[in-house]
Amino acid sequence: MTDPNLENRTPEAPASEPSPATPQNNPEDDSSIVGITHEDVNNVIDALEAGDENSVREQVADLHFSDAADLMERLGPDHRRAMLEATHDILDPEFFTELDETVRDEAVDIIGLEAMAGVVAELDTDDAIEILDDLDHHEQQQVLGAIPEADRTLIEEGLAYAEYTAGRLMQRDFMAVPQFWTVGETIDFMRHSAEHDEWSLPDVFYDIVVVDPKHKPVGTIPLSTLLHNKRPVRVSDIMHEEMKIVPVDMDQEEVAFLFRQRDLVSAPVVNADGRLIGMITIDDVVDVIDEEAEDDIMRMGGLTEDDLYSATLATAKSRFTWLFVNLFTALLAANVIALFQHSIEKVVALAVLMPIVAGMGGNAGTQALTVAVRALATKELTASNALRQIGKEGLVGVINGILFALLMGGVAWLWFGSPTLGLVIGLAIVANLIVAGLAGATIPIALQRAGVDPAIASSVFLTTITDVVGFLVFLGLGTALLM
Amino acid sequence: MTDPNLENRTPEAPASEPSPATPQNNPEDDSSIVGITHEDVNNVIDALEAGDENSVREQVADLHFSDAADLMERLGPDHRRAMLEATHDILDPEFFTELDETVRDEAVDIIGLEAMAGVVAELDTDDAIEILDDLDHHEQQQVLGAIPEADRTLIEEGLAYAEYTAGRLMQRDFMAVPQFWTVGETIDFMRHSAEHDEWSLPDVFYDIVVVDPKHKPVGTIPLSTLLHNKRPVRVSDIMHEEMKIVPVDMDQEEVAFLFRQRDLVSAPVVNADGRLIGMITIDDVVDVIDEEAEDDIMRMGGLTEDDLYSATLATAKSRFTWLFVNLFTALLAANVIALFQHSIEKVVALAVLMPIVAGMGGNAGTQALTVAVRALATKELTASNALRQIGKEGLVGVINGILFALLMGGVAWLWFGSPTLGLVIGLAIVANLIVAGLAGATIPIALQRAGVDPAIASSVFLTTITDVVGFLVFLGLGTALLM
Repeated sequence: MTDPNLENRTPEAPASEPSPATPQNNPEDDSSIVGITHEDVNNVIDALEAGDENSVREQVADLHFSDAADLMERLGPDHRRAMLEATHDILDPEFFTELDETVRDEAVDIIGLEAMAGVVAELDTDDAIEILDDLDHHEQQQVLGAIPEADRTLIEEGLAYAEYTAGRLMQRDFMAVPQFWTVGETIDFMRHSAEHDEWSLPDVFYDIVVVDPKHKPVGTIPLSTLLHNKRPVRVSDIMHEEMKIVPVDMDQEEVAFLFRQRDLVSAPVVNADGRLIGMITIDDVVDVIDEEAEDDIMRMGGLTEDDLYSATLATAKSRFTWLFVNLFTALLAANVIALFQHSIEKVVALAVLMPIVAGMGGNAGTQALTVAVRALATKELTASNALRQIGKEGLVGVINGILFALLMGGVAWLWFGSPTLGLVIGLAIVANLIVAGLAGATIPIALQRAGVDPAIASSVFLTTITDVVGFLVFLGLGTALLM
Repeated sequence: MTDPNLENRTPEAPASEPSPATPQNNPEDDSSIVGITHEDVNNVIDALEAGDENSVREQVADLHFSDAADLMERLGPDHRRAMLEATHDILDPEFFTELDETVRDEAVDIIGLEAMAGVVAELDTDDAIEILDDLDHHEQQQVLGAIPEADRTLIEEGLAYAEYTAGRLMQRDFMAVPQFWTVGETIDFMRHSAEHDEWSLPDVFYDIVVVDPKHKPVGTIPLSTLLHNKRPVRVSDIMHEEMKIVPVDMDQEEVAFLFRQRDLVSAPVVNADGRLIGMITIDDVVDVIDEEAEDDIMRMGGLTEDDLYSATLATAKSRFTWLFVNLFTALLAANVIALFQHSIEKVVALAVLMPIVAGMGGNAGTQALTVAVRALATKELTASNALRQIGKEGLVGVINGILFALLMGGVAWLWFGSPTLGLVIGLAIVANLIVAGLAGATIPIALQRAGVDPAIASSVFLTTITDVVGFLVFLGLGTALLM
């Protein structure tokens, strides 16, 4: 335990009732700790339907902006509009940064560009850029025109950096000091600046960057380290020189990897000349980590994006493409079956059992595929271990292939009274599970090398292969051994 | 820009060569910025195969512990053992916290429990607990026995908290001050403690907790706020009272949700009496966010865990169960087909086309399922919008069902020259896509209500439904209209 002995030092402190200023103090009251409840949502819906704007305003005013954003997302489109119209003048500007992109588009349409400019002007530059980025060029210009010059320049600079790079994530406000300063000078400078409001320090920050005369970062100092040291100590004597510096054009996935790999809380961002131009903090990186995982999950599920908040028609449209591509796969497989129509007419059991062979291959392949896609995303699967992983998946296919061949071969034999049919399905299962394992590991690796996102395209290729191989081997062997 | 005008203040600073102390300064040198390269791995493998232990030690000694852990993970099992045997005495104790669980188990076996006790003794309590947690009870006792009393007590207390709760995530070292202290007293206290080494402050921390005489948190102060204020200011005047307090038994998913929702960097943890007992910091939460996303991805892919580093046999075994469950699904579907053997013998085109109907349903259902599973995990899908979401998925099924019915109906008509067959497959596709949309949204919601993880079980139920409905409607209609 690392706190001073409090009991001995608090003679004049008031007795002990729980302070009314900290209602979240009660750990039993779960609702106040995390998010909003179903009841909160229903209360707002009731007020909206009763047309009681005052009640809606009161309820929303009590919420943290994140919770207010969640509340709005949980409403249907009509209620969303009504809530926003009733409350947009009392909402914290950060409310809009917490909204899902689809819902935010709606919100901009409802409150109008002028009101949006007022919101954007009050946000940190990185949040402002995030919101502006979703608008079209004409709308951007209108909003920017209503923002004070100094902020506008920073925001325009931010928008000039490529999407999904460090430049978009960074905060332009930061605390930098020259190498020869002392701890005391640094603290005085911070106090002085805060007092005279001469330049805007970020609201909350965690590290001070030490820079050389060319304004290149040479070290960082966590604030806690600054406070551990005496006033005359030089910052250059306590700075961490092994800090990680982020180039402004670094991909955001790389930034996220770096923060995770080094457990960073913030990192300096430099331009092409190596000069310090911003800081990235962990809260922005958490959003990136969330997004990347979300993207992987969505793409592997055959979606281009999370469409929870999209309108029905937009959702149907965005999903059509994936289903259309898969239809070709299915038609290809159907053509393979058509080759064996004659065999199926004679031994209809082949038609009964063939989906089992294809399906087992698909499931086993998806297992191998999921591991590979995820490991590529986390950089755990690289050129160094790719071949080993493919070989391992092939072996796993051999082992499970043999087990399921015995199992399913026995079932088929008993069901249709034909040991040969059991043999045919057993052999087909072994073959298809081996192919599924090899393909499941190879396809994502090959796609990544070809510069294609493995999460988005792997499963079409995999299903094509496991369906075609499954039907071909099973029906082919059936034709050869049973006719 | 928020830094003092440096150029005017640096007369005595040295000219301008890039400091040799900061080799990471060059943004072009990508390899030094993020992780290790394929070449690094190959160099170590070459040295291992040449039996050149000194070279291995030198190469590993140059790496950050996270990179050294990545390097080891990319080696095959034999090389892993050789690397660890050559280098375990020079590795940073934190190296072991960065290893994947499977690889860490191997590492414990290789270096032995005694060496492991030395490692654990040097770690922060939360990291020590993470490592001990993977050991069996007997091994835990052996390691704990070799750890100094004070640390051992903290670690044993930590192990007593339930897995996946705040108690396991929290750091036991923190900085707490009484309400009536001033900024100056707080800073002096930190300097004094650091100097006299009287109690162990955490290495790096971001917030100070202000506590009442009962040791209950009443506010937090970011260090940057402390530094913005003058020495005589009272901490109670600048503290944030709307902080979020985490009960020690809060589920780690809830903790992660809270940190994301409020963009927190650290939060105080309290016991059942509301007394401050620890702090959770964002780096631990990032790990949780990663894990949760990873779990969802793995489970939806039919895996119980990420088995990238597991041995082949262990991998095959862990995947068997999922495939076995899916085999029952496939057999159920096969039984449906078997009901219509007579029809298939007469119109073999039914056998050719039936996998298309089932497959389209499976793909469309997976889209609806993925959105629902993810939205449940992020708390975006709740009782408030569940019915609306199910209704929407049904409608999406109607729209895409009609489109693909027209498309595939036309193809079947042209292919087999039978307009009735086109009608049969069209109707079957509409029916199956509507069922798929409804089931894809309903199954995860129902499983979550029943207390089952929707990510793990949803897809088996879905495939069963889309296969059975697909085959039943298509073959049933075919029998009715074509015989």
